[in-house]
Formats: sequence, C-alpha cells, structure tokens
Amino acid sequence: MSRQQRDALDTTLRSVPRSATPPTLDELRNGFAAAATRLAPEGVRTRRSVLGGRPTLELEPAEPSGPGRLLYLHGGGYILGSPDTHAGLVGELARRAKLHTTSVEYRLAPEHPFPAAVDDGLAAYRDLLAAGTDPQDLVLAGDSAGGGLSIATLLAAREAGLPQPAALVVFSPWVDLTLAGESVRSKESADPIFAAADLRAAADLYVATGDRAHPLVSPLFADLTGLPPLLVQVGANEVLLDDAIRLAGRAGADGVEVTLEVGPGLPHVYHHHYGHLDEADAALDRAAHFLTTHLRAARRSADDLQPAH
Amino acid sequence: MSRQQRDALDTTLRSVPRSATPPTLDELRNGFAAAATRLAPEGVRTRRSVLGGRPTLELEPAEPSGPGRLLYLHGGGYILGSPDTHAGLVGELARRAKLHTTSVEYRLAPEHPFPAAVDDGLAAYRDLLAAGTDPQDLVLAGDSAGGGLSIATLLAAREAGLPQPAALVVFSPWVDLTLAGESVRSKESADPIFAAADLRAAADLYVATGDRAHPLVSPLFADLTGLPPLLVQVGANEVLLDDAIRLAGRAGADGVEVTLEVGPGLPHVYHHHYGHLDEADAALDRAAHFLTTHLRAARRSADDLQPAH
Repeated sequence: MSRQQRDALDTTLRSVPRSATPPTLDELRNGFAAAATRLAPEGVRTRRSVLGGRPTLELEPAEPSGPGRLLYLHGGGYILGSPDTHAGLVGELARRAKLHTTSVEYRLAPEHPFPAAVDDGLAAYRDLLAAGTDPQDLVLAGDSAGGGLSIATLLAAREAGLPQPAALVVFSPWVDLTLAGESVRSKESADPIFAAADLRAAADLYVATGDRAHPLVSPLFADLTGLPPLLVQVGANEVLLDDAIRLAGRAGADGVEVTLEVGPGLPHVYHHHYGHLDEADAALDRAAHFLTTHLRAARRSADDLQPAH
Repeated sequence: MSRQQRDALDTTLRSVPRSATPPTLDELRNGFAAAATRLAPEGVRTRRSVLGGRPTLELEPAEPSGPGRLLYLHGGGYILGSPDTHAGLVGELARRAKLHTTSVEYRLAPEHPFPAAVDDGLAAYRDLLAAGTDPQDLVLAGDSAGGGLSIATLLAAREAGLPQPAALVVFSPWVDLTLAGESVRSKESADPIFAAADLRAAADLYVATGDRAHPLVSPLFADLTGLPPLLVQVGANEVLLDDAIRLAGRAGADGVEVTLEVGPGLPHVYHHHYGHLDEADAALDRAAHFLTTHLRAARRSADDLQPAH
C-alpha cells in the first residue's frame, strides 16, 4: 500500500491553496496550526508545565519504561509551530519510546530572533540537569528547524561545560540557513511543501542581517565533536535532503556515531503522517528504538564506571 | 570495553611492518591473504562451485531461513583478495542472516583490468536468475572494492534489462576511483590501513589509462535510480569515509531507500574483526537483519501481485 499512500499524501500536500500574495505571518501560523495539529495519542497524558523559564507541554505515557526523559524541540522555521501543533507527532514518539517527554515552547522569530530559541533550548536542558536528571537518562529530538535547534542546543551545552545526553534524533533537520545545499534547487519541484523562497523568508525573520553561517544558526558549519549518537531521518522529496546528508557527513567526520535514513518519495517531516503512511510509523518505531537503545547503552557504560557493590 | 577494543585494533593494524620499497603485487597478495584469512564459522558448510563461468565458494548455514540467496563480492582493491580471504567475514554474514551465500572469485587486475570484474559480477548475477532464483529472493553484499563492484554489477544488470534484487549491503565501499573525496586527505593520518597512494596504485592497475569516472568504475558518478534498498556501513577512521557518505547522498537523491551508518574510531571494513570488536558484531547483526527484512518485505510485496488462491 505504501506507494499509493505516498502518492496520495503528495497530492494532498500539493492541494493546499497558495494565495497570489505572500501570506502574512499570522496567516502562516494559523494555517500551519490548522494543517499540522493532531492530538497526543490515547494513553499519553498531557499537561502544561514550565522549564527553563518557558512553557512546556509534558507528554507522559501510561507506562514509562524507566527514568529516561526526552526533550523535544518542534519545527516551524523558527517562526511558527508550538508544542500543540506537534502534540500528535511528539506524543507518538513518547508513546513508542515509553519516555516522559517535555516539548518546549521556545520563543519564535521575528518577535524573538536568534539567539532566543537557542537560549531557550539551553535553559530547558540546563534546568533538566539541575533538577537531577542524569544526562545518561536524557535524550533529545526535534524536527526541521527544531532538529537544527536541538543540535545548536547541545553545542551550546558543550560550550557551557554541560555533559551531553545519551542520544539525539532529528527528523528532516534544517541545519544550513545559508541554503547552500544542492537539493534546495534540485528537489524544489519534487518537494510538495517548500520552495527555496520559503526557507529564505524564514531565515530572514530568524537571523535578519546576522551571520547565517554562525555555528548555532547553521550547525552544519559547527565542529560537532562530542555530540551523542545521532539518528537523522529525511525524505528524498525535500529541498532539505542535502541538509540531512551533509549533517551525517559532518557528524561522521567529527567522530560522532551517526545513522542516516533517506526514504524515497517522502516529504518533509513525513513522520507527521503516522497512521496513514506506513513509512511514518516505521520511522517513528526506529527512532523510538534508537533512543531507548542508547539510554540503556548509556546506563550500562555508566554502570561500568561505578565501583562494584 | 569497546574503546579499548578499538584502540587495540588500531595499534595492531599500525604495527604491520611497511617495507621501504613498495611491495610487489605477489607480496601484497600474500600479505593480505595472511592478514585477512579467517575460516568460515562453525555451522557454515563451505564447498567449491562455479557461477557465471567463475569459481565460487558456497557458504551454507546449517539452517537456512528459506529460499533467500546472498551473492557476495569481496574486497581487495580489484587487485587482491578472494573468497578464501573473506571466508570468515562472509561466513559470519551468512550465518547471521541464515542465507545460502555465493562468494565469487571474480577476475583481478592487472591481469584482468576493468571491465573484467564487472563482467564476472554480472555473469554471476545473470546465472543465478537463469537458474530460477527469484530476484525477490536474492540480495547482494560486498566490501571495499567489492562494495563498488556490487553496485556496478546491479547497474550493469539494469542496463541489461535484468530485474533488481531485494536489497544491497556494502561495507566501506570504494565507489570513487578518482579519489575526489575530502577524506582521502583529511583522514589519511586517522586511517591505520590505507594512504591515498595505496588507493591510487590499485586504481592504476584496475583502470590504467581508462576513465576513472566511468559509472561502472566509480558508481558514485552513476545514476543510481532503481537500485534496491541499500545499507552502507563505514568507519570514521577511513580515507574512504567520504565515498560512503557521498554514495548515500547520491542514492538518496536518486530515490533509493538508503541507510548510512558511520562508526566512530573504526577502520576500513572493521567487520573483519567480529569476535574481538563489539562494533563489528553489532554491524554484522544489523546487516543480516537488513537483508532478511527486505527479503521478507520483497516476498510480501510480490505476494500482493499474485491473484488470491
């Protein structure tokens, strides 16, 4: 069924009406919220909280597997989206990984341009550690801009002398705001969601006249040494395909354990379409497995460092 | 234990004495055979056969899982190696995947330069199909030059109008004989086995004055459209790291389902060191799982095409 599922999804995504004039930011935000919002799945309790001074959505599976904790940073080009627009996607990941998950409402541009989002990501990460979470019990994930932001958060944590978590998963990460990837052009007609101009508009709002190659804006250009094991999942029908591929290359060259999965015929953050698209369910399952495997692996290697009882 | 295992392996590999004068081809071949040869594991029966007009080593697990068949093309820069030097590695893959495996003794350069190896790979593949093997029951794998050769074989099969197999796994594939990868230089000191000059010498013998960017010499420069699901595993301490990364990028852009795994601190075809290196065992397990999963997936999708009974 999957070929039919992919084709149907592509048609649906392309059917979104585009006005002749560029939408306003409010129209963009409302349209995204209307299109993206799915509720957290049954069996995942949600509640509001605060972390690092920012509101969060806590997503708690009925039977968490242990002390593991997932920090999630949603996508939306740094200008839109929220834990609510991503409650379905993040809830599915929380449910499959059986992890208590915190989805952070970091500040958005243009009201709060770079480095506000990174500051908020780092504050959330720092507060989780300060609350006593063992970094080996902690994993991060994010999609699109949230994928880039999760890497930037860990780079900022490294610079601040904080320990790294056990693993990181990114879906269709946006890690190059200079838009230098070949796929920004070569995949524009294959991508049913984004054109290069959309990315450029979001980058304009997030960095304005700042340096788009700054390592915390475009972590593709950072030294990634010391990052935890990294899983990158991306669709082949994405202008951001080369962001994922080059990220895997940069991470691998910098000695990071990295797995890259490219899914043919799939759009940006195809994970949103779990339940209707077999590849989305399979990818979420693999992502959940990757997170929990590294949580257990991290716990074992931490145990190795303890004196025997 | 793995950090210690990796460091010990690196030290061992670097301790191989290098003579001041370049070794002769016979010295290279004998040295490689002495260093690489491990026997097929217990429980995997081996026997000699012939396929596509070339000698083969058949590796048969005690309890094959079904009709699935693995065609393996060994590494050695197109100038050395044989099914015997790779009996341990290939036998381990056969055992873990529970697949009857055929390892082909394709012709080597300089006695038989390009395209002899590709001709032999294609002849073997064609004869397996001619013998009645369903392409959906067939998977390919190869390491190093054998990784590049397995891709070239499938490209030649595509050009010949033959169907594709169910999956392909390559370990540290050599897919760019023009040596354009940045890691050919940037990873030279980290690579305990190869220097750029070693690759150049092998390419000289295989292609001589021929076109090193020919798509069947360097499949990185081929259109990879239509290849089956592909798993690429590579070490980060390899001059060939960028061959693997660029291959994943090319395959992904061409609509191939591709998974890339980069293992930090690991040398070229680290899979040879199963039993002593945890990452080698884990990678072989994942490779076996990838092959068998796609065999089953292929069988399911073939069944979908059959009329109901």
